[in-house]
Amino acid sequence: MLWMESMHATEKAPGARRTRLTAEREAELYSAVFALLREVGYEALTMPAVAARSRSSTATLYRQWGGKPGLVLAALKHHQPPPDALNVDTGTLRGDLQEMARLVISIAPVEHELMAGLSHAALGDPQLAQSMREQFAKPAQEAMERVLQRAVDRGEIPADSPARAYCAHLLIAVSLVHPMLDGRPLDKGQLVDFVDAVMLPALRQPAS
Amino acid sequence: MLWMESMHATEKAPGARRTRLTAEREAELYSAVFALLREVGYEALTMPAVAARSRSSTATLYRQWGGKPGLVLAALKHHQPPPDALNVDTGTLRGDLQEMARLVISIAPVEHELMAGLSHAALGDPQLAQSMREQFAKPAQEAMERVLQRAVDRGEIPADSPARAYCAHLLIAVSLVHPMLDGRPLDKGQLVDFVDAVMLPALRQPAS
Repeated sequence: MLWMESMHATEKAPGARRTRLTAEREAELYSAVFALLREVGYEALTMPAVAARSRSSTATLYRQWGGKPGLVLAALKHHQPPPDALNVDTGTLRGDLQEMARLVISIAPVEHELMAGLSHAALGDPQLAQSMREQFAKPAQEAMERVLQRAVDRGEIPADSPARAYCAHLLIAVSLVHPMLDGRPLDKGQLVDFVDAVMLPALRQPAS
Repeated sequence: MLWMESMHATEKAPGARRTRLTAEREAELYSAVFALLREVGYEALTMPAVAARSRSSTATLYRQWGGKPGLVLAALKHHQPPPDALNVDTGTLRGDLQEMARLVISIAPVEHELMAGLSHAALGDPQLAQSMREQFAKPAQEAMERVLQRAVDRGEIPADSPARAYCAHLLIAVSLVHPMLDGRPLDKGQLVDFVDAVMLPALRQPAS
């Protein structure tokens, strides 16, 4: 789920201090940061390792981002997903949830490594935690809300179903926690089963 | 959820090679390992740091456990929870699930740090992943199965509810993923709401 927005660095307001790096160079540096985060995690990531991987100097990295937290935050912000990345519309709630589950699971191995590499550091760093939420959670929550609103409009589920609030969490949770607890990701049959066994019956229940 | 079983090291079969450390000393060393895992995570944990924290020498640590993976695995195995730690029996399924949720959330901050510190390393280390499953997942899964079987015996839910397979995952997932996605753990009212909105309606649905 790492989308490139290579124009990022050139989209500064007129008069803003100009960056010393080209947009392309900046994107290369951020890619090196992501690769290292996946390999060794946040705590063991060092500025010299980023410099070596990206063929730059630690002096450049410190001048531009101040240090490791600033660099990692900038890399996460740079790779914001486009708003329609999780858009699905199959015509039924069951179809939409299955398709979203498939999308979330298909990106999970990569994201899982990145989240696992960052999550310990995020416990002690509210800014990093906020960037992680924007990177991983917000796109899924917004896409899920569109799916659920269409299901309400079609009369498939009651508008006041209390389970609505938990659906994005459930999909992300099952893609992250299942591999951790069972040692392997859910396969496609289990995904369909999870939607049918948990999500649909919960969503069909109105508020009491 | 870190129970001390300080007799562990003395429970060797007769004739087994005797450990050089007393059971008490071994437990102290494992406590130092857990404290450091929570603070810096697995990747950044070093044997000299464990030695300093536990007032031992790296030579002792290497002689006894061979290295960091062996030491961390031994610490996790040493701290297996007692089988009845999550036992609840309130007389109703709703009461039992609320009580289990309360227990899981109450231990979550400590466990969350430990799991976050280990989960990245576990992706590349099947033995560590297996120890994590035994430490964190298995006790919750077994306790949940007892709760659900009693609910079936009382006629509260159908025996063939497909949601049964996911209930332990759901509780662990909500305690781990919610703080990550929302920046704060579920409070008591949200927990009750999650049980009512998601778990109970899913469990009441029979297999189709």
